[in-house]
Amino acid sequence: MRPSHRQPDELRAVSLERAVVKYAEGSCFVKFGDTHVLVTATLEDRLPPWLKGQGRGWVTAEYGMLPRATSERTRRESSAGKQTGRTVEIQRLIGRSMRAVVDLEVLGERQITIDCDVIQADGGTRTASITGAWVALHDCLAWMKARDMLRNGDPLRDHVAAVSCGVHAGTAVLDLDYAEDSNADTDANFVLTGNGGIVEIQGTAEKVPFSEEQFMALLALARKGIGRLVELQKMAVM
Amino acid sequence: MRPSHRQPDELRAVSLERAVVKYAEGSCFVKFGDTHVLVTATLEDRLPPWLKGQGRGWVTAEYGMLPRATSERTRRESSAGKQTGRTVEIQRLIGRSMRAVVDLEVLGERQITIDCDVIQADGGTRTASITGAWVALHDCLAWMKARDMLRNGDPLRDHVAAVSCGVHAGTAVLDLDYAEDSNADTDANFVLTGNGGIVEIQGTAEKVPFSEEQFMALLALARKGIGRLVELQKMAVM
Amino acid sequence: MRPSHRQPDELRAVSLERAVVKYAEGSCFVKFGDTHVLVTATLEDRLPPWLKGQGRGWVTAEYGMLPRATSERTRRESSAGKQTGRTVEIQRLIGRSMRAVVDLEVLGERQITIDCDVIQADGGTRTASITGAWVALHDCLAWMKARDMLRNGDPLRDHVAAVSCGVHAGTAVLDLDYAEDSNADTDANFVLTGNGGIVEIQGTAEKVPFSEEQFMALLALARKGIGRLVELQKMAVM
Amino acid sequence: MRPSHRQPDELRAVSLERAVVKYAEGSCFVKFGDTHVLVTATLEDRLPPWLKGQGRGWVTAEYGMLPRATSERTRRESSAGKQTGRTVEIQRLIGRSMRAVVDLEVLGERQITIDCDVIQADGGTRTASITGAWVALHDCLAWMKARDMLRNGDPLRDHVAAVSCGVHAGTAVLDLDYAEDSNADTDANFVLTGNGGIVEIQGTAEKVPFSEEQFMALLALARKGIGRLVELQKMAVM
Amino acid sequence: MRPSHRQPDELRAVSLERAVVKYAEGSCFVKFGDTHVLVTATLEDRLPPWLKGQGRGWVTAEYGMLPRATSERTRRESSAGKQTGRTVEIQRLIGRSMRAVVDLEVLGERQITIDCDVIQADGGTRTASITGAWVALHDCLAWMKARDMLRNGDPLRDHVAAVSCGVHAGTAVLDLDYAEDSNADTDANFVLTGNGGIVEIQGTAEKVPFSEEQFMALLALARKGIGRLVELQKMAVM
Amino acid sequence: MRPSHRQPDELRAVSLERAVVKYAEGSCFVKFGDTHVLVTATLEDRLPPWLKGQGRGWVTAEYGMLPRATSERTRRESSAGKQTGRTVEIQRLIGRSMRAVVDLEVLGERQITIDCDVIQADGGTRTASITGAWVALHDCLAWMKARDMLRNGDPLRDHVAAVSCGVHAGTAVLDLDYAEDSNADTDANFVLTGNGGIVEIQGTAEKVPFSEEQFMALLALARKGIGRLVELQKMAVM
Repeated sequence: MRPSHRQPDELRAVSLERAVVKYAEGSCFVKFGDTHVLVTATLEDRLPPWLKGQGRGWVTAEYGMLPRATSERTRRESSAGKQTGRTVEIQRLIGRSMRAVVDLEVLGERQITIDCDVIQADGGTRTASITGAWVALHDCLAWMKARDMLRNGDPLRDHVAAVSCGVHAGTAVLDLDYAEDSNADTDANFVLTGNGGIVEIQGTAEKVPFSEEQFMALLALARKGIGRLVELQKMAVM
Repeated sequence: MRPSHRQPDELRAVSLERAVVKYAEGSCFVKFGDTHVLVTATLEDRLPPWLKGQGRGWVTAEYGMLPRATSERTRRESSAGKQTGRTVEIQRLIGRSMRAVVDLEVLGERQITIDCDVIQADGGTRTASITGAWVALHDCLAWMKARDMLRNGDPLRDHVAAVSCGVHAGTAVLDLDYAEDSNADTDANFVLTGNGGIVEIQGTAEKVPFSEEQFMALLALARKGIGRLVELQKMAVM
Repeated sequence: MRPSHRQPDELRAVSLERAVVKYAEGSCFVKFGDTHVLVTATLEDRLPPWLKGQGRGWVTAEYGMLPRATSERTRRESSAGKQTGRTVEIQRLIGRSMRAVVDLEVLGERQITIDCDVIQADGGTRTASITGAWVALHDCLAWMKARDMLRNGDPLRDHVAAVSCGVHAGTAVLDLDYAEDSNADTDANFVLTGNGGIVEIQGTAEKVPFSEEQFMALLALARKGIGRLVELQKMAVM
Repeated sequence: MRPSHRQPDELRAVSLERAVVKYAEGSCFVKFGDTHVLVTATLEDRLPPWLKGQGRGWVTAEYGMLPRATSERTRRESSAGKQTGRTVEIQRLIGRSMRAVVDLEVLGERQITIDCDVIQADGGTRTASITGAWVALHDCLAWMKARDMLRNGDPLRDHVAAVSCGVHAGTAVLDLDYAEDSNADTDANFVLTGNGGIVEIQGTAEKVPFSEEQFMALLALARKGIGRLVELQKMAVM
Repeated sequence: MRPSHRQPDELRAVSLERAVVKYAEGSCFVKFGDTHVLVTATLEDRLPPWLKGQGRGWVTAEYGMLPRATSERTRRESSAGKQTGRTVEIQRLIGRSMRAVVDLEVLGERQITIDCDVIQADGGTRTASITGAWVALHDCLAWMKARDMLRNGDPLRDHVAAVSCGVHAGTAVLDLDYAEDSNADTDANFVLTGNGGIVEIQGTAEKVPFSEEQFMALLALARKGIGRLVELQKMAVM
Repeated sequence: MRPSHRQPDELRAVSLERAVVKYAEGSCFVKFGDTHVLVTATLEDRLPPWLKGQGRGWVTAEYGMLPRATSERTRRESSAGKQTGRTVEIQRLIGRSMRAVVDLEVLGERQITIDCDVIQADGGTRTASITGAWVALHDCLAWMKARDMLRNGDPLRDHVAAVSCGVHAGTAVLDLDYAEDSNADTDANFVLTGNGGIVEIQGTAEKVPFSEEQFMALLALARKGIGRLVELQKMAVM
């Protein structure tokens, strides 16, 4: 039995609320159960120096956590003076995931920055961030389209969403919450597109190595969960 | 005429929502119009080194702004590696304001940290933060009381709230929003207690020095506005 | 009785010595009793990036304290790797105070940097810094005038000086030294112009909130003290 | 045809040289073709603060690259003042991989730090690091055994090694060098144990998402390559 | 002819003023011509961690320069967030020089910190700092003696002073000022004791390597100059 | 008797291996006994900002130590977030030493960066670095010559090498290893050219000041040792 009484292949209650802040070109407040993340997409007319003059745009991401998003207060990274390794890993993953479904040539020489700020954390903040980020990115591109800024077509080629799976108490389960995550033997994050293409797989044996069969079971669960998340994205932006 | 069509002595729509996050001992989502701040109060069993063993507690504050809380995206302080001078000024002000109404001996050897994170900024983020911080602090102390952790009585001696006033287009006005703030000749922040005691006054001539009469007019407006904010705090915690 | 045996409305011995270092365009060694600050004004042909090409100049300030300016040695900020919140607050105040009496259009596209370095601290380092900074700024502008660099007139519109006041042992007193400052119930800093205009008011209740009457008494003392400081500035630059 | 003329399932020339520096308790100079990494294992009688007094030890890793390990000189991280996100990601991966085959209770309250310094980089520095790190770790534990410091048995439960695979020019290939890596459509790193257990899988679609079939082909290649690497580890420590 | 019209073996006007600040246990305002350095010596009842419990004390030094000590304003190190290499080199040199004449066992388990802050720089700031530091150190030890804190005798074994020499326009000259220093072919700093013992020699060929004969000529000049500086130290502390 | 049983004027076994890494324009793996340093020379088409447009090039150096180059593991500077004072001192010394034998006008507007990374440290890392750096620099210039990039002649005017000398157990000895260095009364580093010109002398009394005679004895030893090192450089690049 899962601590949350969910079925092994059951997602937490997911909501994707759009246009939640006033200034951002796109935004989404995403909830995976008690994990709440505010995502904004910012359009800027600048590029990283190494990309200038190549006719292509860029999508990047930053990730943060409010100090009391967690059970114990976490030290503010701005006060510590640097981002932790975990923060850096997550924001690189979010950026790569978005770029996998954006045609950067079609976007043109602009940068979209996705900011994911965790308001409340109960496991799966990175997968919620990616799932919500797609909505914010979609709305940012819609904002551009409405202003006739995308004359070469739509740079958004597909959906992308993410979910974690793990082996908890001997059973492969979908969408781990914190109670499960901290006891899981194996923990994997999957990022898939709407078409079922794999964008990123990160599987880590927390205690004992896992087998190929276990891994395939997790991937099957992830396919199911991400299929549902993509449906929810479609409904959200309808 | 104010850009927002408010009367000179009219506050923006203010709301103080309690218990908005799951983990914090106290929390408040405060809105002054389009300025939205999430405030949490965290109780910890530790003290700054210089205060240890003196039988007194401490209340401190930290302040941050989400990158896209503003019209243009602001660089994340954790990525820049340090807090700006403005951030430091504001968080010191919030901390002093809370300590002015807390009896630190009665609190005992514990620290309460107030985190104010601006989700959306439209002027007056520091005054909204202080006003909401009192609610979060109140609830944190109530949480302690319910657990019999405050055996020497209630450390909270009074309300405290804050508002900005300024001279805009020749008229003294209450609770400046961003449109007014960026054009004001004079800008002052007032922190008062429920009893009308002055905790902090910060008046700054943005362009031309102001007169004592102008300053007194601003103080009168602030008294009126803070009186109303204290009423709203009372209703919120009822 | 004040620890220094001064009358409630009596300043410490103030001196404003000009041209104390060889390279700076303007400089002043200011003493408020045992508080000694070396102020220099540096003219540079550059501007902060956000001000370029607007036909206006800038006046900014930095503040520092020698490690043994204080009774106990303070850690060197360059060794700690960052400026404290207190330093940042003070240098922003000095900069705003100077800009309140300078016409930045008349100054033209140049920057004047005021450096205030505390050689010895006995309370009131920020007010002594502002009072001395006006002299250094005046001399820097005189240096420019002598080289025909100010063809649109004199950018200096007025004097500006500062003093602290507080309630010590129940009495409102002028120009607090360290012994008074560390015991004061209320502490306020006032920055006024030669014409009596208010540039900045910062009043803080250290322990208990203060009343409007107390505040008005402090302001009246400040007016008197700053009047005297402006006279001393006039004599200094005569 | 691969740029290096290797077969799709052919590793580069691999060498694992032991005891290459004088002071470290264990060390290995590992070469995967032109990728050369110096790995040392350091035993210390201290633990991270959060692990003290729990009867368990810790294995952690740090990773660095000499400035001219690369075709263009890279800025020294000590001079930049911080480690890049890539460095942080890699050193966390190495640490997790080692811990997957070490029984931390049996190790006892000590820390082993694995330092991986890239002398020359030609793709696959993280997989070479992990493969060599196992040898250095093995020798560090042998050093301890020789001094009778491991009285509860051998904490090393299995081999662990790593290799990258990718889809290059439409073909799944093993052990990508830089020329392949920079053109690969898909890039995955696999960390497996001697028994074939999966410790870590990281698969990333560089340009277009990949299919499950492609991923399984990469995993099959990785199994083959890591089997060979484990054989080489066995020969090295014989 | 030297730019200053001095004889080749002529020091600049040197003054060593004692007790120039109120709080420090020892202090000296040292002038070598237009080079002015404020030196303080601070006694503290703490030691660096690696020296604790060994029955010995420590003397260390820090060095800084006010931003406008120089012809062009230099960026404040506290604002830059770190000390330059030059600063670090100089403060290490000052510390070593003082320790060469102090018996650290006799001093006992305390630390004396020498702060050298350059008010105005015209070449030779490190040599002026060392020469003045001896006076501040002497007075700090006298302060301790007067409080009966030195029961094992006087830890100060000798004088120590420093001077620079260089080859300017083909001639070996003593005590280079900035005009000479920036054009010198060779530049050497000498730190000698009152007995003529060598504490530190740093000779650097700025453009072309120098010969042993040239170096011996510089050393002879330094001996003469330092002899004179030691006489001035003796007069200063008489 | 020296701990290593060497004669007082005997160098450790020295080797200078060229072309040890694949990418660098010049490289040298230098061994002074158990002190091993990898040196690379990197040619870049950029200059420090203050040197642009003057028709001259630049040679600079950076220095680092692998964490386990030492008997106890040293904290990685990239992880500490800054370079130590010792690192900064050494890299400045290496850079100055190379520039003393390079004609920067003949080099033209390019920068050569010398990276010295200590793989294993047993005393004398800075002198080994300088001696090896000359070889790497020589090969970098040869690389340029082979590509017809040095049309104004050879910028390399002479050899340069370095050695340490010290007074150990009352005897002046050449090329101190760690066991001697940590017990030496006096420690001096000498950098000389092939022609015997002095580039840099750094002599430091570790415990008691030393005499001119002692210093001359060290210089004589250094001459002998550096003569031998220059011969070895000549053989290496033959």
